[in-house]
Amino acid sequence: MERTAPRIVMKFGGTSVADLERIRAVAKRIRAQVDAGCEVAVVVSAMAGVTNRLVGYCSELSPLHDPREYDAVVATGEQITSGLLAISLQALGIRSRSFQGWQVPILTDDAHGKARISSINGEGLIACMSEGQVPVIAGFQGVDRNGRIATLGRGGSDTSAVAIAAAVNADRCDIYTDVDGIYTTDPRIVAKARKLDKITYEEMLELASVGAKVLQTRSVELAMKERVRVQVLSSFSDDAPAPDGRLPGSLVVDEDEILEQELVTGIAYSRDEAKISMRRIPDRPGIAAAIFGPLADASINVDMIVQSTGEDGMTNMTFTTGKADLQRAIALVEAAREFTQYGELLTDDAVVKISVVGVGMRSHAGVASTMFRTLSDRGINVQVISTSEIKVSVLIAADYAELAIRALHTAYGLDAA
Amino acid sequence: MERTAPRIVMKFGGTSVADLERIRAVAKRIRAQVDAGCEVAVVVSAMAGVTNRLVGYCSELSPLHDPREYDAVVATGEQITSGLLAISLQALGIRSRSFQGWQVPILTDDAHGKARISSINGEGLIACMSEGQVPVIAGFQGVDRNGRIATLGRGGSDTSAVAIAAAVNADRCDIYTDVDGIYTTDPRIVAKARKLDKITYEEMLELASVGAKVLQTRSVELAMKERVRVQVLSSFSDDAPAPDGRLPGSLVVDEDEILEQELVTGIAYSRDEAKISMRRIPDRPGIAAAIFGPLADASINVDMIVQSTGEDGMTNMTFTTGKADLQRAIALVEAAREFTQYGELLTDDAVVKISVVGVGMRSHAGVASTMFRTLSDRGINVQVISTSEIKVSVLIAADYAELAIRALHTAYGLDAA
Repeated sequence: MERTAPRIVMKFGGTSVADLERIRAVAKRIRAQVDAGCEVAVVVSAMAGVTNRLVGYCSELSPLHDPREYDAVVATGEQITSGLLAISLQALGIRSRSFQGWQVPILTDDAHGKARISSINGEGLIACMSEGQVPVIAGFQGVDRNGRIATLGRGGSDTSAVAIAAAVNADRCDIYTDVDGIYTTDPRIVAKARKLDKITYEEMLELASVGAKVLQTRSVELAMKERVRVQVLSSFSDDAPAPDGRLPGSLVVDEDEILEQELVTGIAYSRDEAKISMRRIPDRPGIAAAIFGPLADASINVDMIVQSTGEDGMTNMTFTTGKADLQRAIALVEAAREFTQYGELLTDDAVVKISVVGVGMRSHAGVASTMFRTLSDRGINVQVISTSEIKVSVLIAADYAELAIRALHTAYGLDAA
Repeated sequence: MERTAPRIVMKFGGTSVADLERIRAVAKRIRAQVDAGCEVAVVVSAMAGVTNRLVGYCSELSPLHDPREYDAVVATGEQITSGLLAISLQALGIRSRSFQGWQVPILTDDAHGKARISSINGEGLIACMSEGQVPVIAGFQGVDRNGRIATLGRGGSDTSAVAIAAAVNADRCDIYTDVDGIYTTDPRIVAKARKLDKITYEEMLELASVGAKVLQTRSVELAMKERVRVQVLSSFSDDAPAPDGRLPGSLVVDEDEILEQELVTGIAYSRDEAKISMRRIPDRPGIAAAIFGPLADASINVDMIVQSTGEDGMTNMTFTTGKADLQRAIALVEAAREFTQYGELLTDDAVVKISVVGVGMRSHAGVASTMFRTLSDRGINVQVISTSEIKVSVLIAADYAELAIRALHTAYGLDAA
């Protein structure tokens, strides 16, 4: 059957549905899309605070609780919101019904508490929309092959929304949140930060992985894989699309959709870094394995790694982990000292990682050198460097974070006019 | 397969699982039964207060909310308790898992908000128990043939428990509540009220219908139909079965199980009565239909009815309704005056209905006359009388309620020694 109405998935996070008044406001926002002629499916999170309370119950009863029971308890948060929003829509004269994960169904693997969606049957949702109804789907959850409720882990409702958008072949997935889009950098640090109209999946992934927590990383990966166009926009502003059709939020899209690529799209930072340096290691094979094997076994994420060898045949190894993992990482490194025989162990958690991201740098040299020169001009010492195809990251002293971000924002021509 | 272990369904109401501490206490109570060698399935209500909060949300968003969405929202209360109790049991080393209504499945009709259970597949629960696990089932809910969550109406968890006991062929269904059993009458009125060891289904139904709200009426009807032995006992006392095997609570059972029938088992009362009297009605056919037809159409329950005809060919009609329905009933009676042509309409809501109940009165005369004489001796005027096979009810002035109940309790030999 030919479909003429645009089909949109709208996703609302916890702060957007924090109380009954906001749920009513969300219902009006949905009505505006319905009135504009769209077919709409909605994905909701739990009302802000509800999930934390339920998680607290489980932890208090048993620190090592069964994740399947945790999921049964915690999934109720989204179930409540889905029913309440359907009621609110009906009160506005919009036909609507709620769907729980098992009703769609949204099938997951059985990694309870951090499950991954394996498949979604979109037929029921499409039929519901075809009848002029708005399905309201409880986010963050599905059902495993044994019929047990499974949750997707924190922020999983973004992933639910993107997966549902793919399953119903939606034209767009709108993620309503408490910011009005994706910025060139954190506006709290750089007043001249600009909202981006468009950003590529790849850039969004790099930004998310270095601390710009607008979208759950997995949701962006899934959007990229399924080619779902994602808009990030605010549930608290009433911006409508501009007369030229430009949307109010930021679109995360395929590279092909962006005509003029900027060299650098955004600058992100992460304060959740800690540095470990091992000095004067006798250089011989197996050193890296002896250090990083135990860390991987302990599920400690290692990010930046630099190895440098001096003239004396001694090598230095520096790497970063998350701040929360620092003490465990130190213990593991010390435990391997008999093999690594390092001379000195230095640690530092007063560091920040700054990353410049942009798909344009694939075809343009000079991005990294601009970064180093800009920092050097301000007397900022670069401690570690790592690069990917579309990203350059440096580790610097935390005290210089704001200065560095502002200077780089200007240097790459990102400042708003 | 031969089953040797006794199989028990344990049901815990909202006050019994009101907070995490009580949920832990409930888990210990279940462990005691498991340690005693029983196979146990558990049915739980929502934590006290949770259901009211969720109902309030729905009503605030829309007074005429979709009952299917109401059900999706409200059913989360029991879902939370089922998961939390399973976690608590596991923390005590008891293998356990939660079951939602749709997971069992418990199939219902589609009268959402007050659905009736149509069938339960007990296989999964039996398999779970056979593996040495304790299934914890969310009470009060099931799933309709369209796969939508349906709730059973207030107090429905009692019905869930009895239905599950029937489905798994349990030896007993223990209903844990905030009283320690069923009494000969309200102990707040008669200090010498005795706890009953056993009571028949029929007596329990009569007592429930006249105000002794220990068990939901539907759960007793179902227990009678399915011949499920039901024990009512306290979740706050630690009474164990007596050395002679007598259980700590009150057993609701088939008449055959009670060897020595008392003439009168209990005395119940209901303050929720109002009386309407129409005096001097010209006696002719169709009067009763003209009065009670409109009341039935308006879903107003009429309880006791007395018609008396005087020598002058005029008749008097007296009946009772619930206090909440009195004003609506008066309006309907007045609307029919053109036909009934009554001379005078009198109403009185300062009345109480007292009922003596006992299956023994089937085979013994004199129960009613003892009642009338006892009341008459205290100068208490009987306004209306109604009887069933195992019950005699009288309507008297509300002021005399306590006096009448105490006098009758003594007269029928029910006082504790």
